[in-house]
Amino acid sequence: MIPMTSLLLTDLYELAMLDAYHADGMEEEAVFDFFVRELPPGHGYLVAAGLAQVLEMLRDARFSDEELRWLAGDGGFRAGFVDWLRGFRFTGTLHAMPEGTLFFPDEPVLRVTAPLPQAQLVETRIINLLQYQILVATKAARCATAAPDSELVDFGLRRAHGAEAGLLAARASWLGGFSGTSAVLAAPRYGVPVYGTMAHSFIEAYDDESVAFERFARARPRDLVLLIDTYDTEGAAHKLVSLAERLAADGIRIQAVRLDSGDLAEHARHVRRILDEGGLADVRIFASGGLDEYAVASLLADGAPIDGFGIGSRLDTSADVPYLDCAYKLCEYAGTPRRKHSEHKATWPGRKQVVRRYRGNGVMGGDRIQRDDEPVDGEPLLKRVMAHGEIEQPVPTLRESREYLRRQLGRLPEELRALDAAADYPVEVSDRVRALAREADVRIDEQRLSGPRGAW
Amino acid sequence: MIPMTSLLLTDLYELAMLDAYHADGMEEEAVFDFFVRELPPGHGYLVAAGLAQVLEMLRDARFSDEELRWLAGDGGFRAGFVDWLRGFRFTGTLHAMPEGTLFFPDEPVLRVTAPLPQAQLVETRIINLLQYQILVATKAARCATAAPDSELVDFGLRRAHGAEAGLLAARASWLGGFSGTSAVLAAPRYGVPVYGTMAHSFIEAYDDESVAFERFARARPRDLVLLIDTYDTEGAAHKLVSLAERLAADGIRIQAVRLDSGDLAEHARHVRRILDEGGLADVRIFASGGLDEYAVASLLADGAPIDGFGIGSRLDTSADVPYLDCAYKLCEYAGTPRRKHSEHKATWPGRKQVVRRYRGNGVMGGDRIQRDDEPVDGEPLLKRVMAHGEIEQPVPTLRESREYLRRQLGRLPEELRALDAAADYPVEVSDRVRALAREADVRIDEQRLSGPRGAW
Repeated sequence: MIPMTSLLLTDLYELAMLDAYHADGMEEEAVFDFFVRELPPGHGYLVAAGLAQVLEMLRDARFSDEELRWLAGDGGFRAGFVDWLRGFRFTGTLHAMPEGTLFFPDEPVLRVTAPLPQAQLVETRIINLLQYQILVATKAARCATAAPDSELVDFGLRRAHGAEAGLLAARASWLGGFSGTSAVLAAPRYGVPVYGTMAHSFIEAYDDESVAFERFARARPRDLVLLIDTYDTEGAAHKLVSLAERLAADGIRIQAVRLDSGDLAEHARHVRRILDEGGLADVRIFASGGLDEYAVASLLADGAPIDGFGIGSRLDTSADVPYLDCAYKLCEYAGTPRRKHSEHKATWPGRKQVVRRYRGNGVMGGDRIQRDDEPVDGEPLLKRVMAHGEIEQPVPTLRESREYLRRQLGRLPEELRALDAAADYPVEVSDRVRALAREADVRIDEQRLSGPRGAW
Repeated sequence: MIPMTSLLLTDLYELAMLDAYHADGMEEEAVFDFFVRELPPGHGYLVAAGLAQVLEMLRDARFSDEELRWLAGDGGFRAGFVDWLRGFRFTGTLHAMPEGTLFFPDEPVLRVTAPLPQAQLVETRIINLLQYQILVATKAARCATAAPDSELVDFGLRRAHGAEAGLLAARASWLGGFSGTSAVLAAPRYGVPVYGTMAHSFIEAYDDESVAFERFARARPRDLVLLIDTYDTEGAAHKLVSLAERLAADGIRIQAVRLDSGDLAEHARHVRRILDEGGLADVRIFASGGLDEYAVASLLADGAPIDGFGIGSRLDTSADVPYLDCAYKLCEYAGTPRRKHSEHKATWPGRKQVVRRYRGNGVMGGDRIQRDDEPVDGEPLLKRVMAHGEIEQPVPTLRESREYLRRQLGRLPEELRALDAAADYPVEVSDRVRALAREADVRIDEQRLSGPRGAW
């Protein structure tokens, strides 16, 4: 079976265009930008994420014999074109904002420079990889900002949209500032710390809740967290008080309890009192169930004595912002700047850089989208990360990217860190980029006038 | 690297529970149900989907040496437990509603009967596979109901959440009634027809739009669809009128044009007139861009002359219903019915069947959730699809499941097919299931009373 991450995981139109480009000899250098058109409502920023997976995909991009056979057979592609695909490699150059960079609308996050067919074919998967991790890393950063002293754990694998979403959500949420994930595979794949307790079914499988707690504690004494809401949350907390004493005799300590239903603030207050009165002041309370950055902020504002949160479905599906208005657009071909001109979807042409300036106090002061060859006054955000199809070394580790994001969030103007950011971060477009856009428009108008005219 | 669909693609708590079960000899037969607690707002039904992927996952479930090494090493699991995992196989039985079955809240869609550790380990991935395909198949069915005479194509791969989501969305949307997908890999993997045209970048790469159209047409003459909104939609339609004549001389026919921006209804009317007046009455109009079932219904109600729709981001991310309130719950262990009793999250215990009754006119009249051993008066919806870990043959093809869904939608009461379904389909729970729930509650209360009591 052809693997899920095959180059055939693309839109048919990419291959159709390649076929036409190949037939027509259109193989000169093209430049494409990936960018986001607008911030989701209430958002003050987005977090760049997913670059590592894009680099690996480009480095390994080639067609297998099985894929080529399908293309020539049921795929219905011409033999000459399929032969040409046999030699397909990505030999281009990438400039990108490092993972963890805060970015804003219209800023190129990634720039691909390669022969047109190469740069075109990879469009679909580049968007597919970047958009989702940007969404999750951004949501995680918002959660971490809302609950800076809490332990936050990604619980979303089961309701993520498929295998890769669950796995990449674990990666992106750790990048965004989470402490870890429940998704085991994220540990060997990305080094993300994994967390886990027990399900209600564990409690139910035993005839007695106390027995279930004790058996679990003795089998899994490390990092012991017990789920106490299967039948009666407060009743279970009382059971723990007596259990804790028996376990302590054997050197086993209950680290935390987890609440997963009902009024979490109310239960947390009751449970906190029971635990405190039972001498278990150091047992922490962990809550889960339908949470996101807004729910966590509200629980903490309400003074709920909750030390950590499991955040699942709403994180892994990015429930309130399930997709971004993002695009991968041609901005130059064969040395000529190009620009789309559809209604409300115009793009900035040419090779561009994003330069960030900081105020005297180190706070971010504004970005400037400028031509790549303009003088740089500030920090250029797009770095070269791939040349001639090879990944530039060293690649930052995920931990480094996580730390980089944390530092930047500290330099973001306060009003943009809010969950309901009211202000816009200043992003200006340089005069030279604007001039290039006007030139492109003149060219478009000339060819429009050269064609037949409509009645309106 | 450990593959994405490894058994380690699970929550850590599943492995933690297995470890405890193994230590404690808890390996008797368990029964788990997968079900959905409520319909999303405005929904009259849900569509069962994803069973084929669950069956394959269970059939192939085993740990590789690399995975076992990780578990024993960085994973920190005890050697005895890891040794036991080496022999892990799924040997259980599955009863399920066939893909394409319409179902309703609280109805078991899938019932897993297996030794407790086996049935527990696979929880996460079963939910992960079923939930997403149910969401997409349901949305596709709603689109198809809203536009029964239109060609509907899944365009969502790029904004789907990762690789598997894009691929399974193509599968599930075809099951739901779409004509096909843009995602190439869905053809060799699932036999889904693929569709594709061109991107704006193709037009922009050429200096002249007319030249771009003609080169594409000559390179890809079959199923020719041209994208006409890159610069000036109506202007491009006029260009096509003269191009069509030149192409016709070489036997090439333009099948359709695609609009992707602006006021789609307005542009479609203008373009229709230009094409009709230019003798191209048989060239169809295809629209895309931010569509879902509501937008399609509104365009058609508005009389827009659009023959087909590309539906992307909102379908593949199930944007208005990004996740379901679904669960995989223990309902029996070691012969005793089990039940969770958390607030607002109670479940029905025991082995259950869903029986559907039809009215004299063939329209669905109501479902009954009953014990598996109660007499059946109607059509039992749960069929045995796996026994002793082996998939029961024959497995319906995806095309058969698609046809099965189409027939059932024809038997669904009209008011439940609406995009804003106001009515509830009648689902009753049998007296014997209710009695079983009461028995389980008595047992829970007894053990609750046997433990320490809280102050409130």
